[in-house]
Amino acid sequence: MSRPTPLPFSALPLGAFRTPARIRFGDCDPAGIVFFAAWFALANGAIEDLFVEELEVDFHDLHARRRLGTGFAHAEADFFSPGLMGDRVLITPLVTRIGGASYALTVHVHRGQQELVRLHLVTATTDLDARRAVPIPDDLRAALAAYQERCA
Amino acid sequence: MSRPTPLPFSALPLGAFRTPARIRFGDCDPAGIVFFAAWFALANGAIEDLFVEELEVDFHDLHARRRLGTGFAHAEADFFSPGLMGDRVLITPLVTRIGGASYALTVHVHRGQQELVRLHLVTATTDLDARRAVPIPDDLRAALAAYQERCA
Amino acid sequence: MSRPTPLPFSALPLGAFRTPARIRFGDCDPAGIVFFAAWFALANGAIEDLFVEELEVDFHDLHARRRLGTGFAHAEADFFSPGLMGDRVLITPLVTRIGGASYALTVHVHRGQQELVRLHLVTATTDLDARRAVPIPDDLRAALAAYQERCA
Amino acid sequence: MSRPTPLPFSALPLGAFRTPARIRFGDCDPAGIVFFAAWFALANGAIEDLFVEELEVDFHDLHARRRLGTGFAHAEADFFSPGLMGDRVLITPLVTRIGGASYALTVHVHRGQQELVRLHLVTATTDLDARRAVPIPDDLRAALAAYQERCA
Repeated sequence: MSRPTPLPFSALPLGAFRTPARIRFGDCDPAGIVFFAAWFALANGAIEDLFVEELEVDFHDLHARRRLGTGFAHAEADFFSPGLMGDRVLITPLVTRIGGASYALTVHVHRGQQELVRLHLVTATTDLDARRAVPIPDDLRAALAAYQERCA
Repeated sequence: MSRPTPLPFSALPLGAFRTPARIRFGDCDPAGIVFFAAWFALANGAIEDLFVEELEVDFHDLHARRRLGTGFAHAEADFFSPGLMGDRVLITPLVTRIGGASYALTVHVHRGQQELVRLHLVTATTDLDARRAVPIPDDLRAALAAYQERCA
Repeated sequence: MSRPTPLPFSALPLGAFRTPARIRFGDCDPAGIVFFAAWFALANGAIEDLFVEELEVDFHDLHARRRLGTGFAHAEADFFSPGLMGDRVLITPLVTRIGGASYALTVHVHRGQQELVRLHLVTATTDLDARRAVPIPDDLRAALAAYQERCA
Repeated sequence: MSRPTPLPFSALPLGAFRTPARIRFGDCDPAGIVFFAAWFALANGAIEDLFVEELEVDFHDLHARRRLGTGFAHAEADFFSPGLMGDRVLITPLVTRIGGASYALTVHVHRGQQELVRLHLVTATTDLDARRAVPIPDDLRAALAAYQERCA
């Protein structure tokens, strides 16, 4: 397992969507740093923002009304440097792959120029009621592809 | 136990500090609404913002360097209406009492004019290393009192 | 607001249901103690156990199939002593009131004889789809009343 | 990225340590299944149990007194099948690599014979005060190696 190298914030694509977050006391553990599981929740929040603000696909409507699940088939993170309570970070989700019934995002978390965490998340689109895989809906596919293009 | 009545947002003091939050997928439970424990974490985040942005006392420095604990002796919440994923809320913490080694805050959570949740939180100031009660430090006391005044 | 007095574990009713929990690293905050919101989640877990093991009403089936919501109208906690990572605690939920469309529980958390936290939780029964209050179902009412009786 | 195949519970080493967990309402999201970040917290809890019950190294003492950090450098999970509220699962952590200042665990989560989630977690041992890498302490190294041997 080779370890990736942190990227400075300025190395990210200019067209990338980024959303701010503040590290909360309750996100941190007795070591005084962000509890590792909280990074996954924070990254998921950034993806929600990406959907609403950049893709203009209502993440919440997808689940509640359209009954499309966007659960993860795979999630991973490399932790480069600890996040501390009070830190203000920028979270940048990038589309890295669009498949038939799944897509992949890389999410970078920076404090200033320093990359603290990088996540790779593979989403499988599912019918929430039937609990089976379904193709990525056309509107979501188009929005993901257009965003990927803007970051190229 | 008498149940309080929700207040419209416009009934809050003009001088009050308010901080925005967005309800995340991960804050919600299988009933599709904010998991009750998550409201307490969200309210705590708003208090962190109050300290940094309004009281200008560094909440995080208090813990990490000054070793002052601001743990709760009491916490309660009335849940008026459910929060849904994607909701944008405004959280308004007000100082309601300043004692010797404790102070109390009321935290209102509004979606538009509608109050969703109201919390009452009593903080006891402690020495984190000795794990015993200590008086509210002077700078924090003055800042709490000045903010309470601005909201009068 | 008068502060309650901790009760030794031996003062609880002999017929009370108790369920063990272990305090996790991830439940604790940078002060090294249980993050206050985590106590509410831990208490809710104990109520789930109460339903399954003592009331023999399937808490999860209630939500998923019967679409009965058991969300809280009110939740409060008095924090007597901090919980530390690795602590083994016993959580004892008691029924304190059974109303028309709501019931109240008191939940005691002990480490050995020492009461760490006491919570009061008021549940309002709702139709999850219509999002309105409904009477406590008969089977749940009977089970709550019988358990309350066993603790008298 | 090739996707691993779920293993039946009976395929795990006989000498492996396993610890039970129950899926809580609060672990689940509006899709009615375990929120992905919660799986990481559950796996961490199982590692705490491994330390205390099998390795006989006090995980909590490591942090609080010996100031050894066991934070993750890398964490990943493959999600095979969703966990539902009320599920009882068995979590099996296995040691897969012991390096100089890091070690790796694979954590399997089963419901009956069905593997729901598999995680790979790389821990880097650090001095919590100096915030730098330190070799795995001898007692922890010996305990990890002996456990790995028992699972061979």
